[in-house]
Amino acid sequence: MRERIGDMDFMDKMFYPDSVAVVGASPSPRNMGRLIVQNLVTWEFPGSVYPVNPRGEDVLGLKGYASLDDIPGPIDLVVCFVPARAVPDVMDQCARKGVTRMAIPSGGFSEYGESGEELTEVVRRKALEHGIRFVGPNGLTIINTENGLCLPFLPMARREPGNISIITQSGGVGMSLIMFLNNQSARFNKFVSVGNKVNMDELDFLKYLGEDPGTHVICMFLESVVRGREFYEVASSIKKPVLVYKANTTEVGALTASSHTAALANDDAVLDDALRQAGVIRVDEIKRLTEMARIFDLPPMRGNRMAVVSPAGGYAVLLSDLAYKRGFTFPRLSEEVLKGFQENVRADVIRFGNPLDLGDVLSSDAIVYGLDRVMGQEDIDGVAVVLMRRADAKYDGAYSALSREIYGDIKKIIDRHNKPLAMCLLTQCHYLRHVQSRMDYPIFENPEDTVEALAVLRDFHARLGA
Amino acid sequence: MRERIGDMDFMDKMFYPDSVAVVGASPSPRNMGRLIVQNLVTWEFPGSVYPVNPRGEDVLGLKGYASLDDIPGPIDLVVCFVPARAVPDVMDQCARKGVTRMAIPSGGFSEYGESGEELTEVVRRKALEHGIRFVGPNGLTIINTENGLCLPFLPMARREPGNISIITQSGGVGMSLIMFLNNQSARFNKFVSVGNKVNMDELDFLKYLGEDPGTHVICMFLESVVRGREFYEVASSIKKPVLVYKANTTEVGALTASSHTAALANDDAVLDDALRQAGVIRVDEIKRLTEMARIFDLPPMRGNRMAVVSPAGGYAVLLSDLAYKRGFTFPRLSEEVLKGFQENVRADVIRFGNPLDLGDVLSSDAIVYGLDRVMGQEDIDGVAVVLMRRADAKYDGAYSALSREIYGDIKKIIDRHNKPLAMCLLTQCHYLRHVQSRMDYPIFENPEDTVEALAVLRDFHARLGA
Repeated sequence: MRERIGDMDFMDKMFYPDSVAVVGASPSPRNMGRLIVQNLVTWEFPGSVYPVNPRGEDVLGLKGYASLDDIPGPIDLVVCFVPARAVPDVMDQCARKGVTRMAIPSGGFSEYGESGEELTEVVRRKALEHGIRFVGPNGLTIINTENGLCLPFLPMARREPGNISIITQSGGVGMSLIMFLNNQSARFNKFVSVGNKVNMDELDFLKYLGEDPGTHVICMFLESVVRGREFYEVASSIKKPVLVYKANTTEVGALTASSHTAALANDDAVLDDALRQAGVIRVDEIKRLTEMARIFDLPPMRGNRMAVVSPAGGYAVLLSDLAYKRGFTFPRLSEEVLKGFQENVRADVIRFGNPLDLGDVLSSDAIVYGLDRVMGQEDIDGVAVVLMRRADAKYDGAYSALSREIYGDIKKIIDRHNKPLAMCLLTQCHYLRHVQSRMDYPIFENPEDTVEALAVLRDFHARLGA
Repeated sequence: MRERIGDMDFMDKMFYPDSVAVVGASPSPRNMGRLIVQNLVTWEFPGSVYPVNPRGEDVLGLKGYASLDDIPGPIDLVVCFVPARAVPDVMDQCARKGVTRMAIPSGGFSEYGESGEELTEVVRRKALEHGIRFVGPNGLTIINTENGLCLPFLPMARREPGNISIITQSGGVGMSLIMFLNNQSARFNKFVSVGNKVNMDELDFLKYLGEDPGTHVICMFLESVVRGREFYEVASSIKKPVLVYKANTTEVGALTASSHTAALANDDAVLDDALRQAGVIRVDEIKRLTEMARIFDLPPMRGNRMAVVSPAGGYAVLLSDLAYKRGFTFPRLSEEVLKGFQENVRADVIRFGNPLDLGDVLSSDAIVYGLDRVMGQEDIDGVAVVLMRRADAKYDGAYSALSREIYGDIKKIIDRHNKPLAMCLLTQCHYLRHVQSRMDYPIFENPEDTVEALAVLRDFHARLGA
């Protein structure tokens, strides 16, 4: 147990270092290491930052050093962004300085053929000799939104902390995951791009994030799982949702992956089985990794009984099909709910039931009333709702009672009944973004994701309860 | 053959009438029929428009009539938006007036239980007696962007004509399909919401759109296929892409559908087989109906040999997996292409091949050069490209050579080589919409749709050539 705590302390300093040296950061406008320093400045990282370059030049107003040896005081983390062949020397400097944590974004290792393979062996050995642990090479390494530790070598806008953390084997995919979250006004907490994972791998970070208080949901993009048995054990023990997109599932993918992050292929069927048994949520479309992560902002789904609410008959049918295929059941709406609804809603043509078709309910108040009653029905565990809003249309005349927006009401309904209501909003993109930016619950873009997310939520809580 | 031509003439007047009466349109601000007249005005429909209401009041400046009998001159199309029980009387008026085409949006028929069932029989019989053909009831009926015939009873902004036409059994789903197209700055040509399809059904409109010069691609949302054998024959004979989303594939969906458009269930496996044999493209996510339709704006895919181009190693792996699963093959890039590329691009770490990973190619010019060479390689039939653009980041310093946008170049490359290049742009939504609004080729939102669309294009042309 002591060793475990020691591990966590070590890892904590990786994400919360008091001092960071950036080797390879120079004042040249085209220097990429400079962008790492720039991010630390922009993100207001509170620790010490030491740029290191051959001539010891200052970078962005921060005092520069020609070598790690010249830096006064201890260094918790060294970012080493130099050509691959120069990495071993920096590791020696680290050893002299007593540095045990490194982030190595540099490419040019195993993913680059034979010469890179040899270099890989050198750095692997040096790490063992020197007692250094490092993330990389060939990755964007680490971002921690809690303290502004932003190490990717491309300029990034500061992000407020969220509760979703990301582990990715591909820096580019990782950046796109951040973009997907940002697109829906969602936030992430920690990000690690493990690259060739020569020393630390996804499992080290999975363990850490599994115990990290800021991380509630873990999203992983993987091209390989190296330590299968341990991965299974760690994933099984984590009580947080772990979502995985696993690429490199075909022979062509495998060829590509080996030249990318030098990843070996896994037998996909075996892996799939193991992931499922470990309670890992596997997604098969890349954007679903972040979409599905959002569902955990909702209360637990404590059973399998769903109500479906739709803005049009066609969507009621489509949603029923989707929900039925994912194994949900559809309790009848109680007479009380139906009666209350019918008294509240005045329209000639209405079809009440579950699915509930609101196509002819031309009143925001009535829709809110209906959703509240359906959510309140005891034998319903969660609700899937599709709403449609034409952002370029005026809701007046016959449609004037629909003009009031109900997104705030929905938040209150979710909180009041402490059940999940997964909402899909079909609308113009600028309007969707506008609504998402004001609401702190997930709003989905299509009915397929909406139903799938509820299934993911249900399965997670069923497993947790079991 | 004469009858066939006669059919087309009859249908033509349904979409291109010279005169339209809107029964049930009154000047009351909450009247819904008024919105139909309003659309015809907004869309600058060039024919005569006659509002009809009990007191013969004018609507939006157009002279009103108390009955069809009072209208001078012939009427090509009567829109009948009155309570269900009043529809038969309007049909009698039509008969007296010699009207043979009707659009009936009114709900309250078979989808509404027993009393509606009886009414359905009455209108069905009356149509036969009077020689009337009608679309509906319980649907949004017709839009023709070519002449501004816009009949849905909700206010719509005028749309310029495109080449995609829509047949939908659900008005609400149909509206969302128009929204999806509009979201990607794509356009539609004709739209028909068939509702309960008591008289005219999807097949009548499929036949018509199959021969309609303005329609290049047909998208259908169906809850049932009533005339299976004929549907198969008509679909088989159409040389245009026909895409279908079929809902109501499960027992719960079937229950819902019967209360919505009174649709009967089909055996999904049998239907799926028949659709495939007829060359119909079946999609299984609703947004894919419009996404896949866009791929036909690209040149034909004349074979199965694909190049994959990616902005990051992870996406190269992911795309390879997707493309391999859809049966594509990946020719080696020729020495000439690779050599030219290597001479043109200066970067330390680059992996050339197919998939081609442009992750380290930090130059728009070099990317354009590479895409042009890959598209020019003789044994490549089409290219899937994922690009990533961070709309909120400045492309300066080390990234300044990436600042130039290449979307116009890509259009030129597609035209020059007359092959499909399917592009996915991962970016912020406002930027994606901005690019889509300036470009007249499809730009996809995720890698899965991108690869799937190329497979759809390949299969369509393979069948056409066979």
